[in-house]
Amino acid sequence: MRQAGRYLPEYRALRAKAGDFLTLCKTPELACEITLQPLNRFRLDAAILFSDILTIPDAMGLGLHFTEGEGPHFKRRLESAADIKALCVPDPHEKLSYVMDAIRLIKQELAIPSEDKDVRSDKSTLGAPGRYSKAPLIGFSGSPWTLACYMIEGGKSQNFHRIKKWLYTEPAILHHLLNTLAQSVIAYLIAQIEAGVDTVMIFDSWGGILSPDIYQHFSLSYIKTIIEALPKHIPVIVYTKNGGVGLELMAQTGCRVIGIDWTITLQEARRRVPETMILQGNWDPAILLSHPTQIEQEVKKICPLSNHIANLGHGITPDIPVENVEAFVEAIHRYSPSI
Amino acid sequence: MRQAGRYLPEYRALRAKAGDFLTLCKTPELACEITLQPLNRFRLDAAILFSDILTIPDAMGLGLHFTEGEGPHFKRRLESAADIKALCVPDPHEKLSYVMDAIRLIKQELAIPSEDKDVRSDKSTLGAPGRYSKAPLIGFSGSPWTLACYMIEGGKSQNFHRIKKWLYTEPAILHHLLNTLAQSVIAYLIAQIEAGVDTVMIFDSWGGILSPDIYQHFSLSYIKTIIEALPKHIPVIVYTKNGGVGLELMAQTGCRVIGIDWTITLQEARRRVPETMILQGNWDPAILLSHPTQIEQEVKKICPLSNHIANLGHGITPDIPVENVEAFVEAIHRYSPSI
Repeated sequence: MRQAGRYLPEYRALRAKAGDFLTLCKTPELACEITLQPLNRFRLDAAILFSDILTIPDAMGLGLHFTEGEGPHFKRRLESAADIKALCVPDPHEKLSYVMDAIRLIKQELAIPSEDKDVRSDKSTLGAPGRYSKAPLIGFSGSPWTLACYMIEGGKSQNFHRIKKWLYTEPAILHHLLNTLAQSVIAYLIAQIEAGVDTVMIFDSWGGILSPDIYQHFSLSYIKTIIEALPKHIPVIVYTKNGGVGLELMAQTGCRVIGIDWTITLQEARRRVPETMILQGNWDPAILLSHPTQIEQEVKKICPLSNHIANLGHGITPDIPVENVEAFVEAIHRYSPSI
Repeated sequence: MRQAGRYLPEYRALRAKAGDFLTLCKTPELACEITLQPLNRFRLDAAILFSDILTIPDAMGLGLHFTEGEGPHFKRRLESAADIKALCVPDPHEKLSYVMDAIRLIKQELAIPSEDKDVRSDKSTLGAPGRYSKAPLIGFSGSPWTLACYMIEGGKSQNFHRIKKWLYTEPAILHHLLNTLAQSVIAYLIAQIEAGVDTVMIFDSWGGILSPDIYQHFSLSYIKTIIEALPKHIPVIVYTKNGGVGLELMAQTGCRVIGIDWTITLQEARRRVPETMILQGNWDPAILLSHPTQIEQEVKKICPLSNHIANLGHGITPDIPVENVEAFVEAIHRYSPSI
């Protein structure tokens, strides 16, 4: 949940020197360095690939760019059935090779024993060189539905009326797009796995805007197809913002972990999915706006819980103080059962 | 759900002539005319006061204004505890008298028998003079939590971090604000009822961004206080966007009707609330972007259902064709049980 990013001074420093967000994503050495920044600083249990959920549509030629404070935009959004039918599944080893290169670099760094490591970035008092040694690496992709939303809307949207018009008037064309995207995500995640990621997360950021039957047929069914095509030993995490209503459906995709936001309690989520399903989440990042004592209180409300991966329910924002993130991570270590 | 508004050519014509949105709200004759426009055109079962959920903070002196396509803004947002403590409960018969004047005018119009009525506005082939005779009138207000969100954020917000910082660091100050707002909503809705509305709806537009315990303590508890203070014969409708997760909690506020959006099925909602609770909703307004045949299919999926008020799950947007709204209303009449 953006454990690397603008709230970190060392990230801001690198970005000021090296270029915009997308340049950082597309330069393997920088993506590697940024991926490891939060692990130098905090006692984190996993590294998360520094990248963006919209790399696939960018590789398809839509021209991804970012405007400060406005989020992602595409230079060329999808306007017609012809636009959709012209799209090809991108070969991840060509247009997305920068992602696989970054993964290989990160895995090399993570494999170096702690004592041999030099630590590049500014770090907190808790920082210790090479504490991230042997941490697993999480790769990711946007879900087909979420990618389609951005590709048809052209960026963020208030009511998603462009894609919903397709959905209600030309569902076959939309399914064609979603199928192309599912094949693209499969190839992309397999390439990430071959390059070394230990698990993958599928972000269905906009699945929660749909009614349950449409969510099932236009989003989760494609996620299921993707998971079925991935190597069985790789656990898959599926996250849907505002996904609380559809947990039972999410649990049927074949994923090993469901990521949830804070709008449903973990206790209720636990009751509604099979016992073996692992839940990830679900603190509101806004608790990190308060202070260490309050953060500790909020952590205690949830930890310990079985079959649970402690995490935020959504991304850290630039306004969050670094010392509060540290307090959060430390409180989780303090109140979680030892594993 | 904005049954009067920019998708109607007669509304756009009046607005071009008479002024901006807020001027229309604040001029009782115009608010009356606009309230009745959709009833001239469609076979609707109720009139809905043409107004805005943010009239109370405007009456408190925050300076409401609207920017085209950007939504509401306040000239003066709440920045400090002193700002909050300085707020007074507005007397609805002073600063909000334009609302009560509009209600009285609308009720006069609705009381005129059909045959005596002259119809002012352009209308569809289905339009018939005075078809709205004796239709009940629905008044409304924003919920204290939703008003507080706008007052502290200053307008729409992406992550509500300003109000959430108050919530996690200064909950007592936020409760002070919510209490002032609850008292204001009580006085306002009682004035609306005395002026003639037949039922009231409380819009908790931003209740769905909260975790369940915070939703209960910072939003629903104040809605409960409001409902307890209103005359018992007035049924209250409570609507929360993305409220599916918290239906059981909403059902405990004393409301008679729960309004829901499309992210939960009415069938599931029915199972989760007491049988006597009436459900309102829940078609996605985006279905109205399609065509009459598709709209009829969507209506048939939900109608007929017992204890149900057919409605959209959110507001109609300006891009929706008028003829599709007509098809929607007619399909509901066709597939609903006669009552």
